[in-house]
Amino acid sequence: MSQPISATSVTSIRELSQHAGQEVELSGWIDNKRSSGKIAFLQVRTAGGVVQAVAGRKDVSEEAWADIERVTQESTVRVRGTVKEDKRSPIGVEIQANGFEILSLTQDYPITPKEHGTAFLMEHRHLWLRSSRQRAALRVRSEVEQGIRDFFYDRQFTLIDSPILTPAACEGTSTLFETDYFGDKAYLSQSGQLYLEPAAAALGKVYCFGPTFRAEKSKTRRHLMEFWMVEPEVAFLEFEGLCALTEEFVGYLAARILDRSKEDLKVLERDTAKLEKVVPPFPRITYTQAVEILNREGNPLKWGDDFGGDEETILASQFDRPVMVTRFPASFKAFYMQPDPENPETVLGLDLLAPEGYGEIIGGSQRIHDHDLLLSRIQQHNLPVEAFQWYLDVRKYGAFPHSGFGMGIERFVAWMTGLTHLRETIPYPRMLYKIYP
Amino acid sequence: MSQPISATSVTSIRELSQHAGQEVELSGWIDNKRSSGKIAFLQVRTAGGVVQAVAGRKDVSEEAWADIERVTQESTVRVRGTVKEDKRSPIGVEIQANGFEILSLTQDYPITPKEHGTAFLMEHRHLWLRSSRQRAALRVRSEVEQGIRDFFYDRQFTLIDSPILTPAACEGTSTLFETDYFGDKAYLSQSGQLYLEPAAAALGKVYCFGPTFRAEKSKTRRHLMEFWMVEPEVAFLEFEGLCALTEEFVGYLAARILDRSKEDLKVLERDTAKLEKVVPPFPRITYTQAVEILNREGNPLKWGDDFGGDEETILASQFDRPVMVTRFPASFKAFYMQPDPENPETVLGLDLLAPEGYGEIIGGSQRIHDHDLLLSRIQQHNLPVEAFQWYLDVRKYGAFPHSGFGMGIERFVAWMTGLTHLRETIPYPRMLYKIYP
Repeated sequence: MSQPISATSVTSIRELSQHAGQEVELSGWIDNKRSSGKIAFLQVRTAGGVVQAVAGRKDVSEEAWADIERVTQESTVRVRGTVKEDKRSPIGVEIQANGFEILSLTQDYPITPKEHGTAFLMEHRHLWLRSSRQRAALRVRSEVEQGIRDFFYDRQFTLIDSPILTPAACEGTSTLFETDYFGDKAYLSQSGQLYLEPAAAALGKVYCFGPTFRAEKSKTRRHLMEFWMVEPEVAFLEFEGLCALTEEFVGYLAARILDRSKEDLKVLERDTAKLEKVVPPFPRITYTQAVEILNREGNPLKWGDDFGGDEETILASQFDRPVMVTRFPASFKAFYMQPDPENPETVLGLDLLAPEGYGEIIGGSQRIHDHDLLLSRIQQHNLPVEAFQWYLDVRKYGAFPHSGFGMGIERFVAWMTGLTHLRETIPYPRMLYKIYP
Repeated sequence: MSQPISATSVTSIRELSQHAGQEVELSGWIDNKRSSGKIAFLQVRTAGGVVQAVAGRKDVSEEAWADIERVTQESTVRVRGTVKEDKRSPIGVEIQANGFEILSLTQDYPITPKEHGTAFLMEHRHLWLRSSRQRAALRVRSEVEQGIRDFFYDRQFTLIDSPILTPAACEGTSTLFETDYFGDKAYLSQSGQLYLEPAAAALGKVYCFGPTFRAEKSKTRRHLMEFWMVEPEVAFLEFEGLCALTEEFVGYLAARILDRSKEDLKVLERDTAKLEKVVPPFPRITYTQAVEILNREGNPLKWGDDFGGDEETILASQFDRPVMVTRFPASFKAFYMQPDPENPETVLGLDLLAPEGYGEIIGGSQRIHDHDLLLSRIQQHNLPVEAFQWYLDVRKYGAFPHSGFGMGIERFVAWMTGLTHLRETIPYPRMLYKIYP
């Protein structure tokens, strides 16, 4: 097929609407095909989405019609034709084809429109990515991630890439991936927070956003071995300010996804009415109030015990927006959390629980900024003081109140997309015994 | 110090210019101090930079003046005063102080204005971050990273986070960090490219941008064990288009840094005239032409040999902009590079060499899209076919021409900032035997 001088080469579906009435040429994959023998409807996928090309038998050469007849799902093709406005199309246009060519004919594509088991699909993750739901989920993920970058960039945060290879096994090695580092032991990071705190003393408002790792022998829909986490850390931000930042952040992201990922949410059949309620202010309850709610609802949790999935679900179901639970018992929270001035048994920590059963999506706290208090906490937790010397230095030289939180991206994307299993929220999930492809 | 009702709490230096004539209060660190006994000039650092606070002895309380007299470098303080326009200031304003309080007095801060050796500074990296040059370099890094995100987002690329934990030791294990993955061996990724190619078949234009790892026993200023790499991959993009994308990308980033990182480049004493020349089109030479230039310049490199640092420096010095070297011998390039139709001994690969001795910053290629050709290359390179089955599938089901490149962020930031050693371009560098803090 020779390219006529008048055809514009289009590399993204989204450009098409700018070319209404014009002759274009584009290459892509056959997502789906219907043909009556006289007219064929080809769903062609390339960057930006899928466009329908309509080809009448009389409008194309014999050779092209033969190609249209024999083309299969996931073959690569080149289509030429005129862009026509079409109000029924999600992209507003379709292509009236006058040329068609198979670039590579696909045979026996493993994933067919019939139902496949998840194990099979996971083994073929590299091909499963091409399915409409998977594409939609990954586009939402991409939008969430850019939204996070923009949120912090617009607020003058400096991005601080925290290291993945870390020396200290701060809290036991049982859930850490270990590697040899030129004769020393190194571990894959579970959080960048400790590295952010010194950077906050340099630059005031900082964040990191990268992969984190947890070698946990658990096989649930809510766990991955490798996941991405965003963590802001802000100098001179105290607990009330942290609660406000958390709210603003989640409200911004939910609004952005509703605004910019409409088509993808439609593909995923997400009930967007539920997401439209995610507008600050969010309800805030203390841990103590949470225990009262749980007991009232028949859950026997005692003050001092941590929540599990069941407790999170009960609490979240009381509200139509995310609920912020604050001021937890120090006993089961991280050693670095600032004591609550109103009750020394509790700490200035927060968990944000998503509605609809998506569980805890954010955990944060004000950090202890007093050197001696932090030192005593490190000792009480039987942590190696030597390994924390540099972290203590942040309190020794210009101590400052500061706060931050962490959010796992996959859980957030699961909530936005309505997916029940985290494995579909990341391109190549790493799960128990599952590292291929 | 009680806070008067009229004082606005300022959390970023950049907000100050909006408050000219107003009463403000801000917290931060003492970056520097000069005092005549009657008037003190305090450089206060917090989010967004440094502001000068000027305090006359008569303008503050006796208690506040005593605090000003005894305050030391890197103490945290709270300053109250009126924002005054000041044309000499890089931020356009200073603070006429009327209140001052020490929050935390720092004693014996290890990094003083005198010269320190690099080993000492690296041991104190968590504090060294506070120095003006380090802050400037990390702010440039942050701007480069956001620039990269924006470049691809604006061009409708989908972000695909490639996995860090990978099963196959594709090209020998000698430079790979290894870890146990529930009884299997896993390796830390050196590139996301192979994982991007299947995603390009799903979404057309994709990129990844995350940490990569190289366990190389080398101790040069150009190597880190852990570094961040950005890799775009584009379906139906052929070699000429790849060269154009590479140029557009680098031109965009250089222009953005010149525009948005002016103050930081000034702190770093970067000769920006050199960066202003980084405007496409860039000169392009083939590998064969490069060998001719080298031989003419007295370098004895023979056709078929790879470049080292010396050759890169000679080639780059011929041009005032980055130079693109193309069509390398297949013999020393990666197995997946598409053969050059004009010469089967060479491949459609490119290296972009930065000027001023910063070396290769980008490497890219068109990829082999023919299944059988790729299979034969995998076999010729003695790679395990089984481990590449999923990668071959990308050619089996809807083969498509495609291209991409990779750019290491640290080298790019070194070039932009004029830093000679990569260790200052990343917050916590991981080098040979160096993993603390």
